[in-house]
Amino acid sequence: MTETSKRLTLRRLAIDTYRENVAYLHRDCPLYRTEGFQALTKLEVRNGHKQILAVLNVVDDTNIVGVEEIALSEQAFAQMGLPEGTRVSIDHAEQPSSMEAVRRKLRGERLTAEDYTAITRDIAEHRYSKIEMAAFVVTSGQSGLDRDEILYLTEAMTKTGKRVSWDEPMVADKHCIGGIPGNRSSMIVVPIVAAHGLLIPKTSSRAITSPAGTADTMEVLTNVEIGPKPMRHIVNARRGCIVWGGTANLAPVDDILIAIERPLGLDSLGQMVASILSKKLAAGSTHLILDIPVGPTAKVRHMREALRLRKLFEYVGDRIGIHIEVIITDGRQPIGRGIGPVLEARDVMQVLENDTAAPSDLREKSLRLAGRVIEFDPDVRGGNGYALARDILESGRALQRMNEIIDSQGRRAPVAVGSLSLDVKSKAAGMVSEIDNLLLARIARLAGAPMDKGAGVDLFKKLGDEVKVGDLLYRVYAEFAPDLRFATEQCARDNGYRIGPVADIPAYSFGL
Amino acid sequence: MTETSKRLTLRRLAIDTYRENVAYLHRDCPLYRTEGFQALTKLEVRNGHKQILAVLNVVDDTNIVGVEEIALSEQAFAQMGLPEGTRVSIDHAEQPSSMEAVRRKLRGERLTAEDYTAITRDIAEHRYSKIEMAAFVVTSGQSGLDRDEILYLTEAMTKTGKRVSWDEPMVADKHCIGGIPGNRSSMIVVPIVAAHGLLIPKTSSRAITSPAGTADTMEVLTNVEIGPKPMRHIVNARRGCIVWGGTANLAPVDDILIAIERPLGLDSLGQMVASILSKKLAAGSTHLILDIPVGPTAKVRHMREALRLRKLFEYVGDRIGIHIEVIITDGRQPIGRGIGPVLEARDVMQVLENDTAAPSDLREKSLRLAGRVIEFDPDVRGGNGYALARDILESGRALQRMNEIIDSQGRRAPVAVGSLSLDVKSKAAGMVSEIDNLLLARIARLAGAPMDKGAGVDLFKKLGDEVKVGDLLYRVYAEFAPDLRFATEQCARDNGYRIGPVADIPAYSFGL
Repeated sequence: MTETSKRLTLRRLAIDTYRENVAYLHRDCPLYRTEGFQALTKLEVRNGHKQILAVLNVVDDTNIVGVEEIALSEQAFAQMGLPEGTRVSIDHAEQPSSMEAVRRKLRGERLTAEDYTAITRDIAEHRYSKIEMAAFVVTSGQSGLDRDEILYLTEAMTKTGKRVSWDEPMVADKHCIGGIPGNRSSMIVVPIVAAHGLLIPKTSSRAITSPAGTADTMEVLTNVEIGPKPMRHIVNARRGCIVWGGTANLAPVDDILIAIERPLGLDSLGQMVASILSKKLAAGSTHLILDIPVGPTAKVRHMREALRLRKLFEYVGDRIGIHIEVIITDGRQPIGRGIGPVLEARDVMQVLENDTAAPSDLREKSLRLAGRVIEFDPDVRGGNGYALARDILESGRALQRMNEIIDSQGRRAPVAVGSLSLDVKSKAAGMVSEIDNLLLARIARLAGAPMDKGAGVDLFKKLGDEVKVGDLLYRVYAEFAPDLRFATEQCARDNGYRIGPVADIPAYSFGL
Repeated sequence: MTETSKRLTLRRLAIDTYRENVAYLHRDCPLYRTEGFQALTKLEVRNGHKQILAVLNVVDDTNIVGVEEIALSEQAFAQMGLPEGTRVSIDHAEQPSSMEAVRRKLRGERLTAEDYTAITRDIAEHRYSKIEMAAFVVTSGQSGLDRDEILYLTEAMTKTGKRVSWDEPMVADKHCIGGIPGNRSSMIVVPIVAAHGLLIPKTSSRAITSPAGTADTMEVLTNVEIGPKPMRHIVNARRGCIVWGGTANLAPVDDILIAIERPLGLDSLGQMVASILSKKLAAGSTHLILDIPVGPTAKVRHMREALRLRKLFEYVGDRIGIHIEVIITDGRQPIGRGIGPVLEARDVMQVLENDTAAPSDLREKSLRLAGRVIEFDPDVRGGNGYALARDILESGRALQRMNEIIDSQGRRAPVAVGSLSLDVKSKAAGMVSEIDNLLLARIARLAGAPMDKGAGVDLFKKLGDEVKVGDLLYRVYAEFAPDLRFATEQCARDNGYRIGPVADIPAYSFGL
């Protein structure tokens, strides 16, 4: 076979293979037969100086790809950047050179800043297969990253995407590491801080494994998919916003790694720190209040782990130029009453409206966090933030600012809670001694949250409340009967509540 | 959305996604939009009691999949086992339950026999995505498997496939852990042992990362893709065979794990032991001579590692009922002269033909290994195996048996060496003090081996040979000019030979 006969005609195949380039060859393609390509082989597809790497899938249907053609998935075709019909050559691909560093990490070595830069660049350029990405994610989760490696990974991930500049000396931000259902304090902190006058352009995530992210809950009230230009306009006018961060192409490698980590159910402290801080750095934040809830069913279960995490955040933050204050909070139970977008939005608005029915724990926590953000202001005396935040909330200025932000982003029509419901009642008398965050989140998801905005769980009892037999513990809302059935089955197996003596309530003795 | 409307029409898509089930939904499919499936999400596709798991790819072309359809890749469609047009429902898939054990392994725990059984069963049933398989491979490579875990994995992998029974008390086998180019002793050991009368049904592998596997080299002479029935027929008649092991569906999970490991370039001792022994157990072997070459550029580089590996093989072998004798051999340089299928087959036939030009190292090593196999025969006195093997070789009975085996499997027409060649000459005078196995293998692969059977490297000097400036060190053969060019470029960078004083030759002081 001569070199010129090693050429195939390029074709676009409208299959979205997410972050993995896939190339499709017909089983009877002469190159497939003679070159010994194997399944899962990676090919190099080349035309002059343009070249991409792609994993091979073999096809038996000439309607999908002809024997003299090579078809590329959407991503791969876009990356190749050549019209259909172009002649391209293919060859066995060498492994991306940074895989050598991944193998060193597998052997337990520390990697350098250059290694992390090379790895994230290769991932951003689609040179890694899913298998290779999984190896990187697993090995850095397993052998752990030391604090310098976390710093290198953070900086490397930031380099792969866009970086926003706000042209202001102080850009405030607030972040919770998550894991606590109903914890929507950002939607109260942002209007308070913006009303105080600090710049707080908040980008939030959608739920990945939880029943609602801040973006999902904010979306009940207003549009959250805002491009960079309109976002800048809104932030200039209102000093704040609450939008979904996914449109901004900030640290895209982080999104890729999360898409690999999520189905594996992995949790790596180092990757979490790098993920959060690379996004914050790319978003242009300069001052960050970081909320780490601790509790038996929170993401962080022990105080010593929270303290370790705090040191990691402080270490990396100082070196990338973000002033970070870590606040360790009570993560023993859900915050507020509602779990699920509509129910959580209701709680938030009750707090902002100074409604006497507003959940006091959500109000208190939000005021404390907002107070700490306000204290970033050099003109605010240390310790005065809480009182300032409370004044802004009680005066109605926070509500007014929230309404302005909602209107600027594009107010939406109200959404009702799910039309189906289930009352979960206590079978014992005593005191609520435990509420399992994970189980309550699971029940809300089974009921349809976050996709069905009105689905979720509404809590009527919290830790320490006294209950009699038959008292309503919580109500589950769903839109569709099968979803309610799944949730009902879970509640029958374990409803997430324990009723016991006061001594069974887990201790919480570390502030806020 | 009601439950009945959650149904889609099944369609087969002729795409071979190897061991990963892939499901294709149109981007406008109402279920894709409302159910919040994400890229890389795993779906459960169900019809009554039939259900499979598949990774989601999203499609924008109704020729591939319509908006009311779900298309399945070949594997997934076959596994579903339902005709096109069947109505199926889809849902978010739960993770395969054994992933919980993988996560425990990630945290550094030991797994139980039940865990390994569950993991290999889920992999065999296509319940793992590539990402999940990579996580398992990486974590068991990285945290290591202790010897009981290796035993459990070996037994579990054997359970996933067919198991051959030969109805004889002794089924001999011989295996080399690989890494030494030109090391084709199996093709000499098998006819000697078969001529002695022991049963030796040898299944061999094709090259994965090397320039030739025994199956590739045997294929120069005869057909190696032999189904189980003809193989049994040949073995009954000849007492031996040399076939490719890939057709037998022995320990298929091992093949899957290797397909994941290979592109990652991982090497895990534990997985290697489990891989080799699960295949041997499934193939019905009862007595195994295991060759572990040691040398600075061999797979095993240090004697202490070889000894550790020997203990592992012995431990697992004893418990699964295979009598294993480990022989540690000289792996400092390639065995024989040829590297690449045609050149290696030439060396083998020279030895069998008692040609005075035959490479003496290949002859000696094969005789010693054959002698040890023959000593499994209870009628052979310990220490007499070598002499018996030499008699069989020198009398021509080994050659005759090899020709019978070749004819039984289906003799092939001779293949010539590649038509293009490059002479690599010494630039220095002195003694050959080092030959890099990895570099010579790489040069042979760049030249086109194993796909181009006649491509490879023919060595004219070995360790300890004296050379003058301009002496021929080796000749590279290729079929195609670009391949020869790639090999030439590598030879220019580093030709894999070192010329130095005798003191530079690495010591080898541990027997054979």
